[in-house]
Amino acid sequence: MPRLTAERREAKRAEIVAAARRCFSREGFHQTSMPDIAAEAGVSAGAPYRYFASKEEIILAIAGDAFRLIFEPVERLADGTDAPTLGELVAAALGTISGETVRDAAGHPVDVDELLRCAVQTWSEALRSDEVRGPAAEGFERVRASIAGALDRGRAAGTVPATLDPDRGARVVMGLLHGFLLQRVAFGLTDTAGLAADLHAGLIM
Amino acid sequence: MPRLTAERREAKRAEIVAAARRCFSREGFHQTSMPDIAAEAGVSAGAPYRYFASKEEIILAIAGDAFRLIFEPVERLADGTDAPTLGELVAAALGTISGETVRDAAGHPVDVDELLRCAVQTWSEALRSDEVRGPAAEGFERVRASIAGALDRGRAAGTVPATLDPDRGARVVMGLLHGFLLQRVAFGLTDTAGLAADLHAGLIM
Repeated sequence: MPRLTAERREAKRAEIVAAARRCFSREGFHQTSMPDIAAEAGVSAGAPYRYFASKEEIILAIAGDAFRLIFEPVERLADGTDAPTLGELVAAALGTISGETVRDAAGHPVDVDELLRCAVQTWSEALRSDEVRGPAAEGFERVRASIAGALDRGRAAGTVPATLDPDRGARVVMGLLHGFLLQRVAFGLTDTAGLAADLHAGLIM
Repeated sequence: MPRLTAERREAKRAEIVAAARRCFSREGFHQTSMPDIAAEAGVSAGAPYRYFASKEEIILAIAGDAFRLIFEPVERLADGTDAPTLGELVAAALGTISGETVRDAAGHPVDVDELLRCAVQTWSEALRSDEVRGPAAEGFERVRASIAGALDRGRAAGTVPATLDPDRGARVVMGLLHGFLLQRVAFGLTDTAGLAADLHAGLIM
């Protein structure tokens, strides 16, 4: 029954990814070894290699998950047909990073703090590894362009001021997301939801 | 002549810090060794140890320089007696990260790209090292409070809307600084000066 086998494989892979996320979140990418990840997952030292050729492959998988989960709410709003305001786009951008738990594509719960701590580390990795920077830059540009498109629709619909340059407005949304993400994990400023509500209510826009 | 000796010592120390910054910027903190730094500086393998007990001490020195240089323009504006607008504070916050070269306390030129690439790495370090997080969090809080104070003066003077919460406004300024810093080094969006000008001109505030 190949279907069951595939499901079991997927569940085991998810356990290894979750264990790696806990290790990376505590110790960092570079202070964590494959045997550390196996021990955290409670599997044999060789087991992770049945799913990932190297620690770098696990980092890439976690970076991809983090990106998708963090940007999902703003991408969904921006890719719709509505004409959201800049404040609504900012509030959506802060959605995942204001929460405690999200669910990955397979429905497994993911601790948001762990996810964000891994995301900050992928920024450093992107500076020295083409393998990390390539997909990160491509994903960033896709979301940025999608937000700019939504702001352009908003200008046409009158929900966004005509003086707002969509490309620059999109960079502000992305900048606030990254900046508040960093404030939450590195500087203990956890009231991101309150900030989002203020911004949404028209505090600065 | 102890003064000359102290000057020479300071110049040599600055050369080692500059060499470390180049190495860290290219390869990252963890892929750089003390012998790598000595080779980059063109000194003997033991020479860096006359100035720093470990690579971690050099990382702390560079993190301190980066923090001071990045926040200097907005701290100066916020610590003055003027009542700047939110837009003026954002423009000041983007000052250093929009430039190409700055000068450190001793007057040595520092490449801004290198400085910012090191800054992104200190964020990851702050997540796992108390020695990095302590001063970083303290410095962040000092600048944030200083910006909040300036916004409070602005509310009293009428240059800042009464509806703007100074603490939250300060987090927006810090968030945009960190977000645009990351966009410049990791996502190739270098027109930070243009963004600052737009924000200053009242694009969103």
